[in-house]
Amino acid sequence: MTLTGKMLIGQQSLSGHRDAIRAINPATDTPLEPAYAGGDGEQVEQACALAWDAFDTYRETALADRARFLETIADNIEALGDELVERASAETGLPSARIQGERGRTCGQLRAFARTVRLGEWLDVRVDTAQPQRQPLPRADLRQRHIALGPVAVFGASNFPLAFSVAGGDTASALAAGCPVVVKAHSAHPGTSELVGRAIAQAVKQCDLPEGVFSLLYGSGNEVGIALVTDPRIKAVGFTGSRSGGVALCQAAQARPEPIPVYAEMSSINPVYLFPAALEARAQALAEGFVASLTQGAGQFCTNPGLVIALQGAALERFITVASDLLPGCAAQTMLTPGIFSAYETGVSTLAKHAKVAAKGLAASGPNQGQAHLFVTQAQAFLNNEHLQAEVFGATSLVVECRDAEQMRLVSEHLEGQLTATLHVDEHDLPQARALLPVLERKAGRLLVNGWPTGVEVCDAMVHGGPFPATSDARSTSVGTAAILRFLRPVCYQDFPDALLPHALQHSNPLLLRRLLDGQREA
Amino acid sequence: MTLTGKMLIGQQSLSGHRDAIRAINPATDTPLEPAYAGGDGEQVEQACALAWDAFDTYRETALADRARFLETIADNIEALGDELVERASAETGLPSARIQGERGRTCGQLRAFARTVRLGEWLDVRVDTAQPQRQPLPRADLRQRHIALGPVAVFGASNFPLAFSVAGGDTASALAAGCPVVVKAHSAHPGTSELVGRAIAQAVKQCDLPEGVFSLLYGSGNEVGIALVTDPRIKAVGFTGSRSGGVALCQAAQARPEPIPVYAEMSSINPVYLFPAALEARAQALAEGFVASLTQGAGQFCTNPGLVIALQGAALERFITVASDLLPGCAAQTMLTPGIFSAYETGVSTLAKHAKVAAKGLAASGPNQGQAHLFVTQAQAFLNNEHLQAEVFGATSLVVECRDAEQMRLVSEHLEGQLTATLHVDEHDLPQARALLPVLERKAGRLLVNGWPTGVEVCDAMVHGGPFPATSDARSTSVGTAAILRFLRPVCYQDFPDALLPHALQHSNPLLLRRLLDGQREA
Repeated sequence: MTLTGKMLIGQQSLSGHRDAIRAINPATDTPLEPAYAGGDGEQVEQACALAWDAFDTYRETALADRARFLETIADNIEALGDELVERASAETGLPSARIQGERGRTCGQLRAFARTVRLGEWLDVRVDTAQPQRQPLPRADLRQRHIALGPVAVFGASNFPLAFSVAGGDTASALAAGCPVVVKAHSAHPGTSELVGRAIAQAVKQCDLPEGVFSLLYGSGNEVGIALVTDPRIKAVGFTGSRSGGVALCQAAQARPEPIPVYAEMSSINPVYLFPAALEARAQALAEGFVASLTQGAGQFCTNPGLVIALQGAALERFITVASDLLPGCAAQTMLTPGIFSAYETGVSTLAKHAKVAAKGLAASGPNQGQAHLFVTQAQAFLNNEHLQAEVFGATSLVVECRDAEQMRLVSEHLEGQLTATLHVDEHDLPQARALLPVLERKAGRLLVNGWPTGVEVCDAMVHGGPFPATSDARSTSVGTAAILRFLRPVCYQDFPDALLPHALQHSNPLLLRRLLDGQREA
Repeated sequence: MTLTGKMLIGQQSLSGHRDAIRAINPATDTPLEPAYAGGDGEQVEQACALAWDAFDTYRETALADRARFLETIADNIEALGDELVERASAETGLPSARIQGERGRTCGQLRAFARTVRLGEWLDVRVDTAQPQRQPLPRADLRQRHIALGPVAVFGASNFPLAFSVAGGDTASALAAGCPVVVKAHSAHPGTSELVGRAIAQAVKQCDLPEGVFSLLYGSGNEVGIALVTDPRIKAVGFTGSRSGGVALCQAAQARPEPIPVYAEMSSINPVYLFPAALEARAQALAEGFVASLTQGAGQFCTNPGLVIALQGAALERFITVASDLLPGCAAQTMLTPGIFSAYETGVSTLAKHAKVAAKGLAASGPNQGQAHLFVTQAQAFLNNEHLQAEVFGATSLVVECRDAEQMRLVSEHLEGQLTATLHVDEHDLPQARALLPVLERKAGRLLVNGWPTGVEVCDAMVHGGPFPATSDARSTSVGTAAILRFLRPVCYQDFPDALLPHALQHSNPLLLRRLLDGQREA
């Protein structure tokens, strides 16, 4: 497939009218063809108009048809073959194996949402049958289902060019819910975006859906993004990226005449707690696991372990020593973009002003290579200095040495909201871990025991979310099948004749849903 | 029980330090004793600190204990007996029978949430068991439950001094979710608020819960409200009231360092569609039902039918004629407060400038009595004039005459978000009604056939919500058991030893929950 540099507005390929973006191969600092001219307000308007036209039809597609559409997207992405892997690798500096793994995850995710759509539990069907004889007043027949919110704007992330981008979790869950999607491609991987976008547009056609179900726009500045978020036909936003970017979108969405929900996944330093018995028993193994998690993918994961919290003492010293011995053996890795590399350098410099450097990875040997860093500080310093809990996106972490369990609790209470919190414990640590759990439950969306936070399973129970600033909406997850719930709202139908009810609510229960019927869950 | 004029900060009764509010009997325009001195920032801070202290304990109370607490509140409210009815009636001008009915609804609501708490479906437990042999990577054990968001600020409504006030739906659902509640009493019924607040505080004590689970504050201006919404320990807000008040709270909540969700139920004119065959067959009965719904409770319901939409013609003329003949027989009714009466007069005057008066109710014979009004306009005028869809809180409605089905659709698309939309149909109207349904589903939280929107059942399937400005969050309902979902967030536990897991997630399923286990719903 030849890349065209064009946007997709429904089934139409169109060139933008604004400044072009061009991917840069971060490993060589060279630009990649073709150029992607940015869209303008009018093109945003076209995409939103098509999405709006498609909405009422698409949201009422049969569950089986919608599921088949998601599966067709997955098939089409797989059919792109090596071209997708090569382009994504060139645009991101990520190795082919990683892109292949991410492709598997992305297609698996689409198929997981297909299963979720078919199961239909997200419809949350509730039926309260009429009680005409009730005193003092009769009860009407009341039936509730969930429907799609409306067209959704999705902003692709830089660090997962497939799994959190054009056909990533936000798009998959919004399409699953019945929402048309307009994607603003991330400027770091426009070619990957075009390939995947065309795979989706092709699926729209194959499945005979209205073309407005999917559009893909490019833009170098924030014109397209703001036009999208403020378009009255857009009813929700999915975003993965920086805290400043996410907050700006939230503010734009709230300032609309009709405010809309924004699901922004933004910033997390993912504290890892090393409890005394575990640390005493296996400081070496913990340090090895930690360094592996820290440096994986150049540390460019939302769930990268950016903070280690433990009691000061000989065991923690051993942990720091082993980690510090390992780090100089870790090669500097090419980061995703020159911008991310430069922000990483700035973040490391700032940390270096406020905390002690314990160790560094190998120095860079090429452009945009991030050098791993390990810093150490004292709990009191951490409590006094907000710079120390700013996210540094990359392979950098900070060890916070606590005097005692009470100081560990204070440090924990001082943390902002997080995607994850990890506890390394042995049997003897359980009472202390249990005492800290209520704090961590308030702070993070996912709590792990004796693992590492990098690696986010796509499954029913996953929560990739958490209190602000981890996300803009702690009530939601952006990974896992529960992500579909973000794009739905309940509607109640009172005393409807059966013929006028949607299938999901009809008396005979043709979709075989497990309804909440007169207060009882159906078997 | 002697009213004290004091606030409740946990178990302590305290006098405020700011200007006092005093209820006014709207039927006589006379103030009622005692005075309720307003709280200040420090007292808000005390209440929030207590709520925060109570949070971790309260949110982990056993489901049975929490349910019993809700039932105890209901028992205590009933035990207040006639004193509550008399005071509420004096403070609102509402007849005793209406207050008695509302008391039944309020206590029934608390007991319904007790059943919901015991059932535990809101925990939404999802378990994905470990797959240590999975290739290429093993899967961890992942378990999700929902926990309470944190302390909730509740703003009581004027028009339901019991059911949407101190122990109303917001408080009941927040307490059910495991959130401590700090109520800002509505200044129109402070005595009712004190009585109910003391019933709750007594239940806190009887159930041996931490005192911070409930506090009740007064305030004449917006100092208390803004201090509450901006307190970092408050994690969500429930509000029922005016559009300007709700929007102000949303803005204050979004401007916090950590933004929080606000569930504001604000403004709705509740369109009623009279389809041709139904109108032809029973214009008289429809007009009678309409006037009864319009004038019930002086029209002071969020779901009051403020808009009638129909095709022009002889049948609609008959409807207007019958309604216009009935209206002059409707007595002017005392409105809830002098402020509401005055806003009603202003709203009616504005409408009178933009639409034709078809009929009026009986003129007032006492203070604060709202005179019913029926206006008529043409669809084109409605489309061109935003004044015509502003909510006028009271017994006023506007008939919009449409030329044809297409104009009816345009008028519908032009509507802002609504709590309800009502369709009066006969068999022959079904195709036309079906064609309009997609628009109405996008506009309203509840759709009714051949009924009247006033009267909101507390049940599982109810949706009392809808797109902005009906509410600030169309994803939610403030009435019915699904209201509990507003105050929860998911937390995932990865590879936790059973002993460290909350009961809801333990392997043996001690709470007997119907979990989503490895993708299958348990029977």
